[in-house]
Amino acid sequence: MTNKLLKKSGVEISRRDILTGAGKLAAGAALVSASGLTVFSAAEAVKSGANYPWPYKKLDPERAADIAYENWYKGFCAYAVTSAILGQLQEKVGKPYTYLPIEAFSFGHGGTVGWGTLCGTLFGAGIATSFAAGKDGEKILNDVMAWYSDTNLPAYKPSKERAAVKNTNAAGSPLCHVSVGKWMAKEGVKFFSPQRKERCARLSADVAARTVNLLNAHAEGTYKPEHKNQAKMHQMTTQNNCTDCHGTSIPQVAGL
Amino acid sequence: MTNKLLKKSGVEISRRDILTGAGKLAAGAALVSASGLTVFSAAEAVKSGANYPWPYKKLDPERAADIAYENWYKGFCAYAVTSAILGQLQEKVGKPYTYLPIEAFSFGHGGTVGWGTLCGTLFGAGIATSFAAGKDGEKILNDVMAWYSDTNLPAYKPSKERAAVKNTNAAGSPLCHVSVGKWMAKEGVKFFSPQRKERCARLSADVAARTVNLLNAHAEGTYKPEHKNQAKMHQMTTQNNCTDCHGTSIPQVAGL
Repeated sequence: MTNKLLKKSGVEISRRDILTGAGKLAAGAALVSASGLTVFSAAEAVKSGANYPWPYKKLDPERAADIAYENWYKGFCAYAVTSAILGQLQEKVGKPYTYLPIEAFSFGHGGTVGWGTLCGTLFGAGIATSFAAGKDGEKILNDVMAWYSDTNLPAYKPSKERAAVKNTNAAGSPLCHVSVGKWMAKEGVKFFSPQRKERCARLSADVAARTVNLLNAHAEGTYKPEHKNQAKMHQMTTQNNCTDCHGTSIPQVAGL
Repeated sequence: MTNKLLKKSGVEISRRDILTGAGKLAAGAALVSASGLTVFSAAEAVKSGANYPWPYKKLDPERAADIAYENWYKGFCAYAVTSAILGQLQEKVGKPYTYLPIEAFSFGHGGTVGWGTLCGTLFGAGIATSFAAGKDGEKILNDVMAWYSDTNLPAYKPSKERAAVKNTNAAGSPLCHVSVGKWMAKEGVKFFSPQRKERCARLSADVAARTVNLLNAHAEGTYKPEHKNQAKMHQMTTQNNCTDCHGTSIPQVAGL
């Protein structure tokens, strides 16, 4: 007896898949490779959830900023922005947003568990734009990242500040390490200072408000992507601050 | 009449909160600041979902690798690793994992929509470890990131390769741009070449398998975190490859 029990419309389901439960998948919902391996499709991934993206209702950007600022002090940057947007959608839309434990996204803090890579506020913005706007969310996030890199931040002023913040800076980069490092040098403070924490809390407010503004425009049908695709522009995944790391000598790769 | 209708155990719920629906929150589940702002608590965020973290069942790391490799060609790096782990948990555990549309995490591709920041495989590992292991997931991710930076990759060999891959490299960094850039220079290929795509697909397999191995050890109670906290070690959110960007002159901030 052949190992292949079903072959229909290019989809093969093997004995092994049926025994392991993968055979429960509707034909067409899963692709099975030559090795009998189940390859999950997008349709299968959401079989018990709502259609992706999830419904969005317009939010108040100022309230998002206030929540992000307050919540930075509860779970840092990634949690601040995610809770400011998805938390409000849990209130205004309910399910499926209420299925998400928002603290699951707090690991983005400090550029992902402290490694200084993607700023956690942008990680949070990405989670929110993805759930609320799907593939268009990538364009919104791309615009938020470009704005973040080019704008003097933080701009948000809390009604009751925890610490004074004197300086703003345009990071030139979406990286936590570069963004906060340049600001710390300008402000003359250490990473674990109250001032640095306050700066990141205010920055979270700015990113949350900016993201909500673009999501609202998207919901209204007035959003137009501004920033081009980084990888297509540069033929490489990259930021735009090449000389920050490379000086004037950018490595040439295979004739680029 | 005062704006504060209820003050109990330090929790204030204002007229505005009740009118906007925030008053539906159980007392104690939400903090209301002086401005009447609702600050979401972790308990509130999961009111309709399962307790966080979600249940984990041990997975086959080789199957995770195979799925990640195949799925890279369907949704790139972040989707590859997330689907390899959370997709299997959708099969083995079911709800609440089936509430998650896994493609919601594909935006991590190319170091987050092509900006070359955190490698999308590590973004995917972070999503998986967070949902499946909670705060311990941060330690697991920290170890995966250290291993990723220090290990010659890719090591995975597909049963049927799409393109040949000659070289491996230790990136010294969890950044997409640095990791793939160093490899491209060594291999002598462009970013949009079949070889580069194959390298990233194999790398996804490696990261998926490594992450599953650590999650399995965590489930068995044998997991011991190895890599120290980056921010505490360096008094700054950072990688460990300082001279890649700074040369021998690392900026001094406020006496560090």
